[in-house]
Amino acid sequence: MKRLLIAALAVLMLLPLTDALGQQTIAERLGYPRDAKLLIVHADDLGMAHSVNAATIKAFESGLVSSGSIMVPCPWLSEIAAYARANPQADLGLHLTLTSEWTSFRWGPVTPKDRVSSLLDKDGYFYLTETEAAAHADPKQVELEIIAQIERARALGIQPTHLDSHMGTLYQNKTLFEVFLRVARSQKLPVRVAKTWFAQTDFLPSTLTPDDVYIDRILDINAAVAPNDWAKFYSDAIKKLEPGVTEVVIHLAYDDAEMRGATFNHPNWGAAWRQRDFEFFTSEAFRKLLQENNIKLITWRELGKLIK
Amino acid sequence: MKRLLIAALAVLMLLPLTDALGQQTIAERLGYPRDAKLLIVHADDLGMAHSVNAATIKAFESGLVSSGSIMVPCPWLSEIAAYARANPQADLGLHLTLTSEWTSFRWGPVTPKDRVSSLLDKDGYFYLTETEAAAHADPKQVELEIIAQIERARALGIQPTHLDSHMGTLYQNKTLFEVFLRVARSQKLPVRVAKTWFAQTDFLPSTLTPDDVYIDRILDINAAVAPNDWAKFYSDAIKKLEPGVTEVVIHLAYDDAEMRGATFNHPNWGAAWRQRDFEFFTSEAFRKLLQENNIKLITWRELGKLIK
Repeated sequence: MKRLLIAALAVLMLLPLTDALGQQTIAERLGYPRDAKLLIVHADDLGMAHSVNAATIKAFESGLVSSGSIMVPCPWLSEIAAYARANPQADLGLHLTLTSEWTSFRWGPVTPKDRVSSLLDKDGYFYLTETEAAAHADPKQVELEIIAQIERARALGIQPTHLDSHMGTLYQNKTLFEVFLRVARSQKLPVRVAKTWFAQTDFLPSTLTPDDVYIDRILDINAAVAPNDWAKFYSDAIKKLEPGVTEVVIHLAYDDAEMRGATFNHPNWGAAWRQRDFEFFTSEAFRKLLQENNIKLITWRELGKLIK
Repeated sequence: MKRLLIAALAVLMLLPLTDALGQQTIAERLGYPRDAKLLIVHADDLGMAHSVNAATIKAFESGLVSSGSIMVPCPWLSEIAAYARANPQADLGLHLTLTSEWTSFRWGPVTPKDRVSSLLDKDGYFYLTETEAAAHADPKQVELEIIAQIERARALGIQPTHLDSHMGTLYQNKTLFEVFLRVARSQKLPVRVAKTWFAQTDFLPSTLTPDDVYIDRILDINAAVAPNDWAKFYSDAIKKLEPGVTEVVIHLAYDDAEMRGATFNHPNWGAAWRQRDFEFFTSEAFRKLLQENNIKLITWRELGKLIK
């Protein structure tokens, strides 16, 4: 009996993505073998700036970036909406937006401002940071605004395949996450949630149900990585990629005058940062890494099909 | 008696800018000789895009562009507001905005949208053209919105020296012009009006009073001028400049990715157009023309001081 238990434990340890209760992994639910390495290469912040739109569309065309999400309140929404209408196969979600983080270049809500005053700073824009936004946000107004963003996107001909949250504002506390999840469920859209977050974010396991669709892990770079180590960071992560569904969250734009103007006092996620992401994720080196490591690119559209 | 009359008529013809009733010309009211050639070199559309802000600030620094006006609803307002706070001597007015003319890149009102629905197109932005905007605009909502634009500018530390109207929407009919003038008078700010418009715009003479401050003429380029003739058009106009106050209305930006993205389907006032304006109005050739033709650059701030 003891041996059997040890053997069973060993099997469980070899198959960390099989739910302890024997439920299917997300990879299996998608119809892939449980050891498949599945990757969503996801570009955030579409609609924010022309530079972001242009670089991301170029990256989609390389076939190496499989998904992206759109910021509805931003000034360049119309440009990416036109792309979405012309490319209905593109895997485009909504990057629900409740912050406006660049000091020279700003945006505010889709909802009439007097109905969402808890979301606005003294200048009438969204707050600069996710912490301020979450601290002031009235959950009813958050619901109103994120539904308005989804409705505006649909009115412009965008058929979103998934939802996520710009700067993670909607993951800042349980109340906001519940609003987010309620709206996503009512729209039958999957939400960016990773199983690896469960350990740090105690409200996630209690809020989600087995019917919700979420992925295994998120991979993203951070400011501790030196610019010269950018490609090495991503290459190492891809070589070590575990089975299951991983989303690498990237930020694409060109290091041009517009992006430098927007991010002039904010090197993190700034113009040069985004150019480095663009260069790596459209490179032949990245394409080769995917092949050599037997990694398959997938989309949120596939995940969304699992929602009942 | 007849000789006297002919002599008087001859004097009047030599002094076309002296009011027929013997009132002072605007140049004289400003304290200049009646034959002084006074020029406001005015850059429109500040706040619209980073490219517009950067090129216009560069042009201000050349000393050859004396004035500009800001679009409060636009995404790059914060950048130009920071410039205005740091440069309180800059002659910055407000380019009151009721249209959003680029199809890839759009903006809407400062006022909560449900209070100014007559100003919005089906996508929730301002109309694309001044004709549509004027046809749909409820004058009360126009008043609400332009006051909101002025108040937001002041809240950001902009002290406007004058008002004008993006794409001329507020000059489209007498009702809108009366709203514009009422708001301007209550703010004690001068408005872009030229005496030469009186012949074409029949409501102007009846709406304005001798206490209002307006200039003699506006000079602007148009799409009939071939790109290669740009400098010649402006040079000829400057050489022929008549005495009095002229405003040359120009549009500055760089012919860069952001401006090309915004104006991709709209060569008039597009990226290359604005680069040509930038090149001429920051050139040594323009500086020399001003000197050789004894033209003095003035500002709207000087004109505003005449308002009682």
